[in-house]
Amino acid sequence: MEPLWRKTASRVQDYRAQGLRKVQPPLPEIPSNLPKSVTHVPHQLLSQREIAITDSSPEGLLSYLTAGKWSSEEVARAYLRRASLAQELVSTHFVWKTSTVKKLKVNCITELLPTQAISRAQELDRFIKENRRPMGPLHGLPISVKEQIGMKGLTCNAAFVAWADKVMDDDALILKILWKAGCIFYARTTEPQALMHLETSNNLYGITVNPFNRDLTPGGSSGGEGALQALRGSCLGIGSDIGGSIRSPAANNGLYGFRPTAHRLPMGGSSFASNGGSYIAAANGPLSTSLKGIELFMETVLAAKPWLTDPTLVALPWRKSEKLTDHLYGKKLKIAIMWSDNVVTPHPSVTRALTIMSSQLKNIDNVEIVDWNPYEHGLAWEIIAKLYYVDGGKETTDLIDRSGEPWRPLSNFIIKENPYVRERSLADVQGLVADRDNYRAQYASKWNATATGDTSNGELEGMVDVILCPVGPGPAPRLDCSKYWCYTSQWNLLDYPALVFPATKVDATVDSWPKDYEAMNEQDKFNHDMYEPVDDFDGMPVGLQLVGRPFDDEKVCVNLERLDED
Amino acid sequence: MEPLWRKTASRVQDYRAQGLRKVQPPLPEIPSNLPKSVTHVPHQLLSQREIAITDSSPEGLLSYLTAGKWSSEEVARAYLRRASLAQELVSTHFVWKTSTVKKLKVNCITELLPTQAISRAQELDRFIKENRRPMGPLHGLPISVKEQIGMKGLTCNAAFVAWADKVMDDDALILKILWKAGCIFYARTTEPQALMHLETSNNLYGITVNPFNRDLTPGGSSGGEGALQALRGSCLGIGSDIGGSIRSPAANNGLYGFRPTAHRLPMGGSSFASNGGSYIAAANGPLSTSLKGIELFMETVLAAKPWLTDPTLVALPWRKSEKLTDHLYGKKLKIAIMWSDNVVTPHPSVTRALTIMSSQLKNIDNVEIVDWNPYEHGLAWEIIAKLYYVDGGKETTDLIDRSGEPWRPLSNFIIKENPYVRERSLADVQGLVADRDNYRAQYASKWNATATGDTSNGELEGMVDVILCPVGPGPAPRLDCSKYWCYTSQWNLLDYPALVFPATKVDATVDSWPKDYEAMNEQDKFNHDMYEPVDDFDGMPVGLQLVGRPFDDEKVCVNLERLDED
Repeated sequence: MEPLWRKTASRVQDYRAQGLRKVQPPLPEIPSNLPKSVTHVPHQLLSQREIAITDSSPEGLLSYLTAGKWSSEEVARAYLRRASLAQELVSTHFVWKTSTVKKLKVNCITELLPTQAISRAQELDRFIKENRRPMGPLHGLPISVKEQIGMKGLTCNAAFVAWADKVMDDDALILKILWKAGCIFYARTTEPQALMHLETSNNLYGITVNPFNRDLTPGGSSGGEGALQALRGSCLGIGSDIGGSIRSPAANNGLYGFRPTAHRLPMGGSSFASNGGSYIAAANGPLSTSLKGIELFMETVLAAKPWLTDPTLVALPWRKSEKLTDHLYGKKLKIAIMWSDNVVTPHPSVTRALTIMSSQLKNIDNVEIVDWNPYEHGLAWEIIAKLYYVDGGKETTDLIDRSGEPWRPLSNFIIKENPYVRERSLADVQGLVADRDNYRAQYASKWNATATGDTSNGELEGMVDVILCPVGPGPAPRLDCSKYWCYTSQWNLLDYPALVFPATKVDATVDSWPKDYEAMNEQDKFNHDMYEPVDDFDGMPVGLQLVGRPFDDEKVCVNLERLDED
Repeated sequence: MEPLWRKTASRVQDYRAQGLRKVQPPLPEIPSNLPKSVTHVPHQLLSQREIAITDSSPEGLLSYLTAGKWSSEEVARAYLRRASLAQELVSTHFVWKTSTVKKLKVNCITELLPTQAISRAQELDRFIKENRRPMGPLHGLPISVKEQIGMKGLTCNAAFVAWADKVMDDDALILKILWKAGCIFYARTTEPQALMHLETSNNLYGITVNPFNRDLTPGGSSGGEGALQALRGSCLGIGSDIGGSIRSPAANNGLYGFRPTAHRLPMGGSSFASNGGSYIAAANGPLSTSLKGIELFMETVLAAKPWLTDPTLVALPWRKSEKLTDHLYGKKLKIAIMWSDNVVTPHPSVTRALTIMSSQLKNIDNVEIVDWNPYEHGLAWEIIAKLYYVDGGKETTDLIDRSGEPWRPLSNFIIKENPYVRERSLADVQGLVADRDNYRAQYASKWNATATGDTSNGELEGMVDVILCPVGPGPAPRLDCSKYWCYTSQWNLLDYPALVFPATKVDATVDSWPKDYEAMNEQDKFNHDMYEPVDDFDGMPVGLQLVGRPFDDEKVCVNLERLDED
């Protein structure tokens, strides 16, 4: 007999299919024999106008929308079609090291909202016609949203079968703000079981794969966003990040992704298991096809002063035009490159990306490059892994087991097989919080030690401004192999803002492991072997990460802008 | 046989006496028959020059010091003498409702540092002579420090006998910053057992009394600061506040006192019992004889970017000269007056202080006065009282019991007799933290509801800017009677910045309770009866409190400046 959870999943998928079917005009037939990479397919199947709209950057779209060159409705319709196409692209998937074969869709959408989106777009078109001004700074911009972020009247299951029918009675605060700014919500995107994989698979919707190579993962947990944007079914979306969940999909799909300092963007109104308390703060943040998209998102949300409604936030606007960041354009910029965290060696493609950046940066006036010496990143993982599940994983375990749904491999990995997960007493937690804060203080002290001297008024001078580093130990991993979080979780533990950007692509002709490679440890060996042979990864996007100190969110963005310009 | 804890106390007091004896020239004989108020006595016993120096405001002192009109050494010597005088003023104390009589000193000092202070002053004098510029923005300014804030190589007992010999191996970060700014540390001040009374009594140093009336308390826990500054033995000092500990002594002694938003000023390097974890954040902050003293302190500490060293802090400078606050001078100011918290009715002197302010404010252009409707302040106490001691008071109890020292009445009150103190599980704490955050969100929503409308871009307009309210339910209470915290702890729970300023003095001819007064509850009755007869409080300072929203620290200060000017 079919287990109950499968019935629930079928029902949920039928509901999704209904939404997809409403898209007009219907999608053309999708070729059945697609190659591993499907990123070129939308161009073959959409109209020129649709392509022009959906290939635009957020800032490009907005300039056309506010100038009235494109209506909100035609923009919404184009994105609905491209998103539904992104969802459906399907081909045979060969499972690594086994002889099994699967047919997998990209499968990045949990719910398409064509009726709401078009009605909203029409409202926006009326508004701009009647008022001769846009409704707000995001007038007509379609924004995709990770499923766990609640929408009033819609389910919000956070990828738990047990929550398949959980309906939210309000919009999440961050959505209310974006709505007031004039955006259109049209697509909700996939996430993994328990929300704690750097991949995206669950028992309600299945597996999301990487559009650049469907043998590989788009990353996670905001993996639906990553895959959807890789296919330009969205140019700006919202994810959340407690260990890399925005940045991993951004890097794996050639996108920009930003995890801001915690307590800047509102988190209220999402579904998630609290796992004993928030001793590591999750942060919502944007993924986008452009850096301007990231900045526009931050600026718009913070301009609404969300801290007046949500007192867990720091009252701090986006200081883009203020002295704080303006002077950076003239100032000498000191960039520290972290080539490895000394636990797991990055894939040669990642090292090459850093080498390219390094040589380019050396040619820029007023930029100094130094090496970053990682301080005890292994210990950092131990601390954060303990703090993720201070309830010993009880709440998540109950949520999974309640419906009888099976445990996905990476849920087992992060909870059941994780040696650091244990039920903690209040006193234990107090000790772990002290460990966290001590580690943060030690890391700050290492950063301060990069100063070359004191100014006359005792201020530190010549310190490193930002760290440039890998986003992960390689390009997008094979499915169920994303077991090394530390290149991203490191900055969650420290609560440093971290911005991911596309840097290069894997080139199988040069990115092989050195012949004399020797594994430093088991994790290192696993990572090394998983990326063999390199041909399997040819052409995959490689991202890099620019990291600042707490509340240097604007500085990190402005510095990447500056590097992009130079 | 004398218990061991008494021997420890005697030893600690002998050590204190040694420091006091080093002050030169020795103090003149102190009259033996002093009245209840001794605030006028220093003027009778000090030289004109000493009086001129020590009667100065911090900003006045600094202008003379940097102009070279007064040397750092003579300033230090004058403050050492006035502080040692403040310590020694003694008279007969009549215990309320009993026939007992006690001889009590003001007793506000735990340690005087004449050798270090004079050596430091001489260093400053050499510096300014050699460099023709001050060492920093606080060049030569004497700053008094609550004992619990650690000084390298000195004991730091936090008023626990068990910690009488605990020596700190480093200066607290906040002291390091002030030191770099050129200040002089010369006096350490008293605090109560367990640091959790709004009074100041402990078994190491005894009871600190109010210099305006030694039958009454100076408040606490930073009560030594309050009493010392009441006698102008200091013009600027550091306290800490988790429920009113800066603001109660400021109000009770006619001073300014500021509890900033938590996580702005560094807390590291202090002694205290952690009581299961910091679910209500304590905040260090200044007490001063002037508002400029408060602002100077905040600006100086934040200019040193303490967040670079202490990652628990928010990276936010003191935004005094920025647009954020500058525009306040032109803008309409909407002040809400909270006349009562609807749990305990304030003493008529407090209501009169509010009435005076209210009528004055009504005459100022661009100021609007409305009433503040307190939202569930009783519930707020329940939440904060639970969160103070999530370990059920175990750590503090162990620390008291370890030495065999007796429990002071107010330690019993806040721990053993407190119905909300209980050992909590991690899950309980998670629930309480949710209660705290929900209450904060509800209060924020009440504040937002004071808006008169939305601007075209959706921003709230015409909201209350600041709340003006009592600091306590009356002037300085009788000893061991400070049992109602809610006028201050309310803002700790909400983490709102709160600035206390002197407003008026009790006038026994007008400040009697109304004849038809009826108690709302037991706490209200206790407060009413404790303030009978009003003659016992005649002439006592009455402070008021200006409260802002989180991170509105600068706004609160600028607004009080503006009101002072008008």
